[in-house]
Amino acid sequence: MANSKYEYVKAFEQDDSLLPNTWIVVRIDGRGFHRFSDRYQFQKPNDERALNLMNTAACAVMKDLPDLIIAYGVSDEYSKLVTTIVSTFTAHYIVNWPSFFPTTPLEPGFLPSFDGRAVQYPSLQNLRDYMSWRQADCHINNLYNTTFWNMILRGGMSNTEAEKALQGTVSGDKNEILFSRFGINYNNEPEMYKKGSVIFRDYEIQPQTEKKAGGMSRETEYQVGEEGSPVEMTKSQMARLRKIQKKATIVVTHLDIIKDDFWDQRPWILSNKPGKLPGEG
Amino acid sequence: MANSKYEYVKAFEQDDSLLPNTWIVVRIDGRGFHRFSDRYQFQKPNDERALNLMNTAACAVMKDLPDLIIAYGVSDEYSKLVTTIVSTFTAHYIVNWPSFFPTTPLEPGFLPSFDGRAVQYPSLQNLRDYMSWRQADCHINNLYNTTFWNMILRGGMSNTEAEKALQGTVSGDKNEILFSRFGINYNNEPEMYKKGSVIFRDYEIQPQTEKKAGGMSRETEYQVGEEGSPVEMTKSQMARLRKIQKKATIVVTHLDIIKDDFWDQRPWILSNKPGKLPGEG
Amino acid sequence: MANSKYEYVKAFEQDDSLLPNTWIVVRIDGRGFHRFSDRYQFQKPNDERALNLMNTAACAVMKDLPDLIIAYGVSDEYSKLVTTIVSTFTAHYIVNWPSFFPTTPLEPGFLPSFDGRAVQYPSLQNLRDYMSWRQADCHINNLYNTTFWNMILRGGMSNTEAEKALQGTVSGDKNEILFSRFGINYNNEPEMYKKGSVIFRDYEIQPQTEKKAGGMSRETEYQVGEEGSPVEMTKSQMARLRKIQKKATIVVTHLDIIKDDFWDQRPWILSNKPGKLPGEG
Amino acid sequence: MANSKYEYVKAFEQDDSLLPNTWIVVRIDGRGFHRFSDRYQFQKPNDERALNLMNTAACAVMKDLPDLIIAYGVSDEYSKLVTTIVSTFTAHYIVNWPSFFPTTPLEPGFLPSFDGRAVQYPSLQNLRDYMSWRQADCHINNLYNTTFWNMILRGGMSNTEAEKALQGTVSGDKNEILFSRFGINYNNEPEMYKKGSVIFRDYEIQPQTEKKAGGMSRETEYQVGEEGSPVEMTKSQMARLRKIQKKATIVVTHLDIIKDDFWDQRPWILSNKPGKLPGEG
Repeated sequence: MANSKYEYVKAFEQDDSLLPNTWIVVRIDGRGFHRFSDRYQFQKPNDERALNLMNTAACAVMKDLPDLIIAYGVSDEYSKLVTTIVSTFTAHYIVNWPSFFPTTPLEPGFLPSFDGRAVQYPSLQNLRDYMSWRQADCHINNLYNTTFWNMILRGGMSNTEAEKALQGTVSGDKNEILFSRFGINYNNEPEMYKKGSVIFRDYEIQPQTEKKAGGMSRETEYQVGEEGSPVEMTKSQMARLRKIQKKATIVVTHLDIIKDDFWDQRPWILSNKPGKLPGEG
Repeated sequence: MANSKYEYVKAFEQDDSLLPNTWIVVRIDGRGFHRFSDRYQFQKPNDERALNLMNTAACAVMKDLPDLIIAYGVSDEYSKLVTTIVSTFTAHYIVNWPSFFPTTPLEPGFLPSFDGRAVQYPSLQNLRDYMSWRQADCHINNLYNTTFWNMILRGGMSNTEAEKALQGTVSGDKNEILFSRFGINYNNEPEMYKKGSVIFRDYEIQPQTEKKAGGMSRETEYQVGEEGSPVEMTKSQMARLRKIQKKATIVVTHLDIIKDDFWDQRPWILSNKPGKLPGEG
Repeated sequence: MANSKYEYVKAFEQDDSLLPNTWIVVRIDGRGFHRFSDRYQFQKPNDERALNLMNTAACAVMKDLPDLIIAYGVSDEYSKLVTTIVSTFTAHYIVNWPSFFPTTPLEPGFLPSFDGRAVQYPSLQNLRDYMSWRQADCHINNLYNTTFWNMILRGGMSNTEAEKALQGTVSGDKNEILFSRFGINYNNEPEMYKKGSVIFRDYEIQPQTEKKAGGMSRETEYQVGEEGSPVEMTKSQMARLRKIQKKATIVVTHLDIIKDDFWDQRPWILSNKPGKLPGEG
Repeated sequence: MANSKYEYVKAFEQDDSLLPNTWIVVRIDGRGFHRFSDRYQFQKPNDERALNLMNTAACAVMKDLPDLIIAYGVSDEYSKLVTTIVSTFTAHYIVNWPSFFPTTPLEPGFLPSFDGRAVQYPSLQNLRDYMSWRQADCHINNLYNTTFWNMILRGGMSNTEAEKALQGTVSGDKNEILFSRFGINYNNEPEMYKKGSVIFRDYEIQPQTEKKAGGMSRETEYQVGEEGSPVEMTKSQMARLRKIQKKATIVVTHLDIIKDDFWDQRPWILSNKPGKLPGEG
């Protein structure tokens, strides 16, 4: 073939496969979103439209890429996995923009874009600790931002004054400032702002009592996911599973994911098996 | 801090920095574009609108990310670099879609998405061989596809018949089929189809004669790019360079990049220095 | 500093840290040991002296590097870990050579050397499956080699004849050949040849009944190892643990590691905690 | 096969190939050599026997592994390359120990061991800068150590006093201290201590004049090494090259490798071609 003398360059492509049997978390960040949110005048400290747009894009990604969330045990090329998710997210973000910002069209010179990276967690506990870390972080940041922006927007402080006033304060102090100065009970703030959004495929909630009565330990439930080899599922089992997953509704919630309840009631999230669809026999 | 017990999970983030001082090629592929091009009825074998849309998106990426093409020597996180480029490309592809397909709006369930990966080439020769390989490949594929689709669309063959008829043929055979059966002189086909598109920042073409008279060897020209350490440029030099680059027009061409001429006339592409802007002193 | 202009080269050192909280298996292979074993006339199919020398070197490595076997959860530089183990193994192999081959001194031009690589297994089950795979492989190879070399050394066959005669045979066939032609009952072959060698720190065997009576599930035993974050142990706990480990005898055994018994009786191997020393309270 | 259910564990082995066409530097460090050199009472600041032993081991490694030094362009598994070199080095270090320390036998509990890592440098200039950095560093460290140990061993200072006295001094100060207090002209110190050791295959020195007369630029000389694809050499060319390399003497020198002379006179070191053997036609 005419181009064979150039083909040696293929040798420069380096393998970047992920370690099998780990929980892969893909984190997506908006690029330059500080400037982007100024440009399109996002509300401070939280812009509901912008958050809902993010959630809509995330739901659409889960719809488009059924492997997500039960990605456990999947061995894949790192770059292919991450770029596919980021590209799909970008596409849906842009296409859904007009529904959330009907009077503010995107300008060609100021398009949103995202970067992403994958991190691998070998054990379930590592994964849950990662998720707990993010939710604890979300709470801390939101409490800070809510106080900070109220001081500025309603208290008339400058950025520097508000920053200084908040230095060294603990959670209790910020709650107190919000309540005494602005009449805000932080506990009544929207759950989305305080807890972030958790998106998953929805099946029938697993009643806690039945589970205990049935004597099933968590270990039994999670067995396949935690220990099994990824190759043991047959193709027809995979196809059946894929079909049930496609039927499942993808829901956006703002639940506590640090406590066990969330996970215990939804064993399908961490196992490799979809649950019962609501209303199914 | 409240979430400190979870913070150990940061240790799972693995470094993925690229080797400095190499030429980084980021390849972008449409995901499932066979199906995508059917859905939106792209013309066979080449859809000019679709190709121009790709080029428009690529130009916009180069405009948004000024490091591109002179990325030589840049050390960056692999995943951040690749996902940023793919996300930016996706954004511009979607936003520019209506200009190229005004009567075929994108459907939410069938959005385009892309994946990407970075490959590193240590030497200039490796980089040029990679580019030569792609252009040689483009020619071979286009000759095949042009013959194949003429046999089907104008010759009335089925896919299988055309495939079979082309098995074992060399370039000369395909040229002959195109000419004798369909009156097509392959040499007269559009350059974009035969050579692909090469996009770069345009400065004043370097006259070949002057260069030889000046006694400068190619080695001198490329010296900085090939051997220099990336840290030696001062911040103000970088800023000046960035400014000139932003002024430069980004052009889409379909030139031969296998021969030396293309590179010899545009030393700024492989050096780390922008050239003279056309019409500049 | 005089050499500062060269220091940018540090940027070329790429991070190669291992993923935390995984089981790291370091495999060591003799380099060119086919030729090496010919040179020093190792006996076929198994040379007891050579195997004992390997085991002695392996025990010494475990003595020198107390992190081994309980290496679980350790995050380390890949290359440092692997080269240290291989270098230590090589050192002990050479120094112990005269004890096992007293009449065959090593020749400077024919020194033994080894290579190694690390593989990471995220779950306990993956690790045990890896070990099971190696032991099953050891049995299959040893049965083949025992039959093959008896056919040659006692049956007078050539290598090619023996190879051909064994093609397509299953385990039963080889057992039959060994018994009927050479009067060998494969089951009576030394355990070291059939099962390989398993080397570990020896503590008091855990009685199975007591364990069940105590109601401890395996999950409880392994909890720290399987799920815990590596940072949670205090320095003084680490020091105490290290001290007990240093006192423990390192033993070479040829036990079945595929069945659960081996692991159930020695919970200290997979947990992060040393067991009771024999004869201790 | 009986063990097929375990074989999925193969998927955990991750590829770690090095980028082709780069200069691979393998650095070997003694593990715990501070303690080791105390145990065997190495002389301060430089122990000639210990340095010569290192050089002897390094020469032997180059003899055993003919790919070394001309390793340019070799694509290899990272871990295999590094562990092989470290293991071979360890073997020769131990076997040659008695020649350099005839009255101090190695004790089994205090064996030397080494770790290593590979770093890749894409361009010749990067490689030379790395080597220059090491040699500049060697000079700086040796000047410091020579002054430090003379202050202690002959000046009667404590470690802390010497350390304090040297704080903030520049090269000139240390030269002055050595000369005025201890009558040592640093320039007359052994080259091995001041410059380190450079080990390479020795061919006929390339006369500088002839080179210039012949009009060959450095670029021509290095062409294959710098730009060529590694696949272009035929097997018989490789075999011939290997044969000449095996005949070449491996020499230990203490030359200046920062200036161009060293490299210009020995083009075979950086090219992929052995030079003329001394005395050859």
